Amino acid sequence: MLSPQAVVDHMMQNDLFSQWLGISVLDIKEGYSNIQMTVRKEMINGFGIVHGGIAFSLADSAFAFACNNRNNLSVALDTAINFIKPVHVGDVLTAEAKELHNGKSTGLYHITITNQNNHVMAMFKGTCYRTGKALVEGGESK
Amino acid sequence: MLSPQAVVDHMMQNDLFSQWLGISVLDIKEGYSNIQMTVRKEMINGFGIVHGGIAFSLADSAFAFACNNRNNLSVALDTAINFIKPVHVGDVLTAEAKELHNGKSTGLYHITITNQNNHVMAMFKGTCYRTGKALVEGGESK
Amino acid sequence: MLSPQAVVDHMMQNDLFSQWLGISVLDIKEGYSNIQMTVRKEMINGFGIVHGGIAFSLADSAFAFACNNRNNLSVALDTAINFIKPVHVGDVLTAEAKELHNGKSTGLYHITITNQNNHVMAMFKGTCYRTGKALVEGGESK
Amino acid sequence: MLSPQAVVDHMMQNDLFSQWLGISVLDIKEGYSNIQMTVRKEMINGFGIVHGGIAFSLADSAFAFACNNRNNLSVALDTAINFIKPVHVGDVLTAEAKELHNGKSTGLYHITITNQNNHVMAMFKGTCYRTGKALVEGGESK
Repeated sequence: MLSPQAVVDHMMQNDLFSQWLGISVLDIKEGYSNIQMTVRKEMINGFGIVHGGIAFSLADSAFAFACNNRNNLSVALDTAINFIKPVHVGDVLTAEAKELHNGKSTGLYHITITNQNNHVMAMFKGTCYRTGKALVEGGESK
Repeated sequence: MLSPQAVVDHMMQNDLFSQWLGISVLDIKEGYSNIQMTVRKEMINGFGIVHGGIAFSLADSAFAFACNNRNNLSVALDTAINFIKPVHVGDVLTAEAKELHNGKSTGLYHITITNQNNHVMAMFKGTCYRTGKALVEGGESK
Repeated sequence: MLSPQAVVDHMMQNDLFSQWLGISVLDIKEGYSNIQMTVRKEMINGFGIVHGGIAFSLADSAFAFACNNRNNLSVALDTAINFIKPVHVGDVLTAEAKELHNGKSTGLYHITITNQNNHVMAMFKGTCYRTGKALVEGGESK
Repeated sequence: MLSPQAVVDHMMQNDLFSQWLGISVLDIKEGYSNIQMTVRKEMINGFGIVHGGIAFSLADSAFAFACNNRNNLSVALDTAINFIKPVHVGDVLTAEAKELHNGKSTGLYHITITNQNNHVMAMFKGTCYRTGKALVEGGESK
């Protein structure tokens, strides 16, 4: 059986967009992830603040790392994000994913995005569908 | 009065992340936008398909270009995206934003993402809050 | 094989809350439903307008009648509703459910609620999970 | 200045649908509510379990009681609910609303619905728009 950390290591190695975002993985547990990135200038939108797609992408990576780490390949079905405060270049964003439901066929996760001052910047929720296939071959799924 | 196209031209000029995504603006009308991008290799996730944040970001740009183009600065409050089919490197994604409600203080938009074969890949909905401030100074808001 | 109409007739017969709401079924097709109700006084909230739960409930019934009518028992996973205009006592609400995606394991539906003046009052979206079991026994699922 | 409890008492008095649901108010604080109801037979859907509109309606009432209790009239814009476990007749549902963001113009709330065994049955999130008007006249808004 692969550990949750080993599954996420495998995912992160192939995840070129999370690499472009500059994501570092802080903590992985079964059904849980905590990740971080620093916002760069090329991530701003037409208002000079950070593009909503950046916070979403960070949260979506945290969601994927949490919902897949039992090595049961799971795909995002339905996700939503609420934007609470504007994010600026240089901000250090942390996304913590918590599992609200771990069903056989589906799962539900809440991801909270905070900045370096521990202010909540955005709240994400995601529903995934579990395929029942192994994500990393050779490591049976839980 | 600035035209919707002039407002979006101004936004796009400053929108470094939409530039990184490779977004080109196909059509702009009041409360409407239609934009396109081609998916590149650095946009994939840990499964070798395109990261959910890419489709979201494209839709979020289309949303911003539609809900701001009366030059009434509007911010995203609550957005959601449903992922219908996996997106692959090389796919050409089009995001079309339609206005369902243009209120004084808020607005509601649906954005449909299709690929080069006209398959629906994702559906996005966004609620914005209208600040009442001009986005481009010197061009009064509608 | 049961017809979509027969499946919905069976559902409606047992659906005591839809009966309380006063729902009448206008049209049923595969993956589609169109239903109607008239708002009564006991449906108002603390502001004297109609409680948000009423529009949601109507839309949720339309969703259930659309996503289950191939006799493949499907359960609501993730739903959202945007409230556009306040609903008043006496309004006649129509909910039309359209299928955006009919997957093997999941489905996605948009439901539009209009009033007697054909104004859009609310927009609902729903993701369901398909169990693969028959809803009505003796009628095999599609 | 009216207390949060006084504002909710006023709302509950006029809220005929919350009365039909059998809602009792357990606890009210600024930006917070905790309410309860017992599910009755006329609340079931076509599958013999409780209609999704019932859990939504309970959560929507909790949302309204939390987001309005500073006597700043606030309307629901965008709400979503995830259904986790089926609800049955006789279940005692509790909805607890917590404030994630109390902005000048908008607010964000999470409502958790649990049953008599403290199992989470559904999770609701709601974004409201604040009108700035007093809900109860004579009690100035906070």
